[in-house]
Amino acid sequence: MSELGRLRRDEAEVTSWDEECDVLVAGGGCAGACAAIEGARAGAEVLVLERAGGVGGTSAMSGGLLYLGGGTPIQEVCGFEDSAEEMFKYMMAACGPEPDARLIQPYCEESVEHFHWLVEQGVPFKPEFFDGAHEPFTSDEGLTYSGSEHVFPFNEIARPAPRGHITQQVSNKGSRLMQHLLASVESAGVRIHVQSRCEALVVASDGRVVGVVVATLDGRRHVRARRGVVLTAGGFIYNREMVERHAPALQQCKVKVGTENDDGLGIRLGVAAGGEAIRMETGDISLVLFPPNQLRRGLLVNGRGQRFVNEDAYMGRLGEFTVLREEGNAYLICDNEIFVRPDMFPIELAAVAQSVAELEADLGLVAPCLQDTVAAYNRYAEQGADPLFGKGANYVSPLTAPPFAAIDLRTKNSLYSAFTLGGLRIDAGGSVLAPSGEPVPGLFAAGRTTSGIAKQGYSSGMSLGDGSFFGRRAGRNAARSL
Amino acid sequence: MSELGRLRRDEAEVTSWDEECDVLVAGGGCAGACAAIEGARAGAEVLVLERAGGVGGTSAMSGGLLYLGGGTPIQEVCGFEDSAEEMFKYMMAACGPEPDARLIQPYCEESVEHFHWLVEQGVPFKPEFFDGAHEPFTSDEGLTYSGSEHVFPFNEIARPAPRGHITQQVSNKGSRLMQHLLASVESAGVRIHVQSRCEALVVASDGRVVGVVVATLDGRRHVRARRGVVLTAGGFIYNREMVERHAPALQQCKVKVGTENDDGLGIRLGVAAGGEAIRMETGDISLVLFPPNQLRRGLLVNGRGQRFVNEDAYMGRLGEFTVLREEGNAYLICDNEIFVRPDMFPIELAAVAQSVAELEADLGLVAPCLQDTVAAYNRYAEQGADPLFGKGANYVSPLTAPPFAAIDLRTKNSLYSAFTLGGLRIDAGGSVLAPSGEPVPGLFAAGRTTSGIAKQGYSSGMSLGDGSFFGRRAGRNAARSL
Repeated sequence: MSELGRLRRDEAEVTSWDEECDVLVAGGGCAGACAAIEGARAGAEVLVLERAGGVGGTSAMSGGLLYLGGGTPIQEVCGFEDSAEEMFKYMMAACGPEPDARLIQPYCEESVEHFHWLVEQGVPFKPEFFDGAHEPFTSDEGLTYSGSEHVFPFNEIARPAPRGHITQQVSNKGSRLMQHLLASVESAGVRIHVQSRCEALVVASDGRVVGVVVATLDGRRHVRARRGVVLTAGGFIYNREMVERHAPALQQCKVKVGTENDDGLGIRLGVAAGGEAIRMETGDISLVLFPPNQLRRGLLVNGRGQRFVNEDAYMGRLGEFTVLREEGNAYLICDNEIFVRPDMFPIELAAVAQSVAELEADLGLVAPCLQDTVAAYNRYAEQGADPLFGKGANYVSPLTAPPFAAIDLRTKNSLYSAFTLGGLRIDAGGSVLAPSGEPVPGLFAAGRTTSGIAKQGYSSGMSLGDGSFFGRRAGRNAARSL
Repeated sequence: MSELGRLRRDEAEVTSWDEECDVLVAGGGCAGACAAIEGARAGAEVLVLERAGGVGGTSAMSGGLLYLGGGTPIQEVCGFEDSAEEMFKYMMAACGPEPDARLIQPYCEESVEHFHWLVEQGVPFKPEFFDGAHEPFTSDEGLTYSGSEHVFPFNEIARPAPRGHITQQVSNKGSRLMQHLLASVESAGVRIHVQSRCEALVVASDGRVVGVVVATLDGRRHVRARRGVVLTAGGFIYNREMVERHAPALQQCKVKVGTENDDGLGIRLGVAAGGEAIRMETGDISLVLFPPNQLRRGLLVNGRGQRFVNEDAYMGRLGEFTVLREEGNAYLICDNEIFVRPDMFPIELAAVAQSVAELEADLGLVAPCLQDTVAAYNRYAEQGADPLFGKGANYVSPLTAPPFAAIDLRTKNSLYSAFTLGGLRIDAGGSVLAPSGEPVPGLFAAGRTTSGIAKQGYSSGMSLGDGSFFGRRAGRNAARSL
């Protein structure tokens, strides 16, 4: 039988259903939990199927941070002004190329409502601002900058506001988030089966998705979904062959963010039923060099000694530029004044020398490119400015104190992390779309099974963000479907 | 009816067939013609369906140049040594990221045989070498460099050899190529229907493709393909929405290379029948600034005045780097010694000034980045070297003669050309592959409907090259299928 035959079955082949529900949710992470809650509240009998031995997925392993804004109570208490318009401007500039305004607009307009909904599910956010280089790892503040809102060029495009809303807990924040969402799933009367892997979608002769074939420990079962199926099965960073075929640049990154079930099954099921996979080459690529922030005073240069991005940009932007534009070749140039070992990021020094000229020679670079880079930077840094790349004045000071060091940030010697952002194309209601732009009847999706709000340009919290937001919509719309 | 229902029909729905054949070829360009010839020679009754009013497609509008090598008679007569191994090394380095060795290996190993086959079809190649910056537009030589084989870094990876084999004719070379291939199609006894658009593939219950639904001027017809269907329907550069969804960077390019029928229909049909589309973000992006070659003595700099690629690289590499890595921002810096208006490329001067410092200021760049760039280049250029980017000594000389000029090569003000390279994943036999890696039974493809030998990194002649090569294999294997 062909692959299509395996991932997609005609309804006519199904002789009897082993179980029935209104809305079937495939995947028990954040997106699936939110779909289940809202599906059940809309009156549907909801069944969640989870491949793993327990629900939670990659969401439970995450930092519990959601990208929210537009003027949430947490933003207000912390003294930050925000609006849906400014949030929209930032996202349309940062989440490209060609972000989908049809997803981003409702995401921004209803973000405050979504915050309140999360709080209603019991998710706690402490109304304190964390002014760090990264989300808090050893404290429990509820708000932080989780993207490049406050740095060049985005601070000139939209009024900056921090939008990383963090589940309150010192450690295991993602686990705490999921604990509350799953309690809500349970109290909504949703059934959950674990160790249940969807292996095919069942499609009626008119193209409507009407159920799934499930592999369980007790064998194969056929489950009817009277109103719809919601695919919330994660991305594909753990499917080596899919990454090689679709997103080869991500292979440079040694740290895969996900679980082994992020193997793209949800995407493949959706395509087999007529959905379209888009932006499959995209991914979050992070360079987690900071904290401490002090290192941002250094110069990130490519394999020829040229700068290529402002060093105060979000870690995902630094990683993306290094991997996608510079073929994974980068060093951070420091002087003795600013050098410090990063808190969490193991580093190798590619060279240490008494002058920039010697450092350049030790790195095997062609003189005087690195010397020119440092001299041009220092010339403006004396006045606290970085007109070439727009790094913020708080991180600008001349590099003049020997010895000078080059931290090796080449992907082959360093720890970049990655997960996939490509997947099924959906509309704002969470319907999976065919290439024509029409919905595939009865089929919905959310989270990293979809290409969501971040079309390459990523900020932290966008995956739990769009997974929860469009998961809710998918669950509601599936419940109303048919 | 859903999109899937439109692009894919169950065999059970087909009450009767209006026409039958063994092998049905959808698309009458170079790939389709080669599939038809070989299918017929393998004993199959072949039918070619073409949407347009006549066959030829984008191939007939092309430069008639095929990427061939490994020691063809033309290469030998012109005094160039080549081997399948060296050709393979170049292609694996140049055609990435992650080119598919399973396609490239047979392509190289059988390239000489493929050359002879083309000659047998009557395609003429004049055994003379054209030593230009670009394929010959006003002469009829048969061999030229059509990639970056002879320049850095590829000249250090594989022994350089020109592999652009050009159909002999002064103008309308592509038309000449197709004239010979189509004569061969005709003499092989192949039927051709024009104004016949495949609107759906018909799929049997076991997943096998068994025919097509065709829209014609006389209405809808059902055509049975007893042995297989070969999709050779071009790419999707003329489908604005598909480009926006899948390959947004290509939107920067003002010149679309193709016909209006390059709308991705073949790809969408293949996916609907269970095939997988891969590398949909990729495309050829060309900066056709040269000839004359003399301009390569200039410096290609980005929007900050930094160089980013050797200026003697192939036009597709220059375009790719400018658009994908530099966000479409580039200038060519010239001095009075080298400046000349390009032969075919309309240019605007962004600035002209008596010194590089003034030029930099007029361009609005942050000093002294451009001055440093020029000074560092001149320092080595005195000795005829370019150690920073490896430009060949024949194009290296100091830029010192005022006035200095910056040719505006920003995509918004300049003519970059593009076509798509993403499409159906195939194996070396031309079978369309499902996500699992298994062939979709009865379904074959070649040319720009597929993701072929160039996975982004392009050299001229690779589309006619892989279209003809895998088209032949697809036709043969379809004829033997079942």
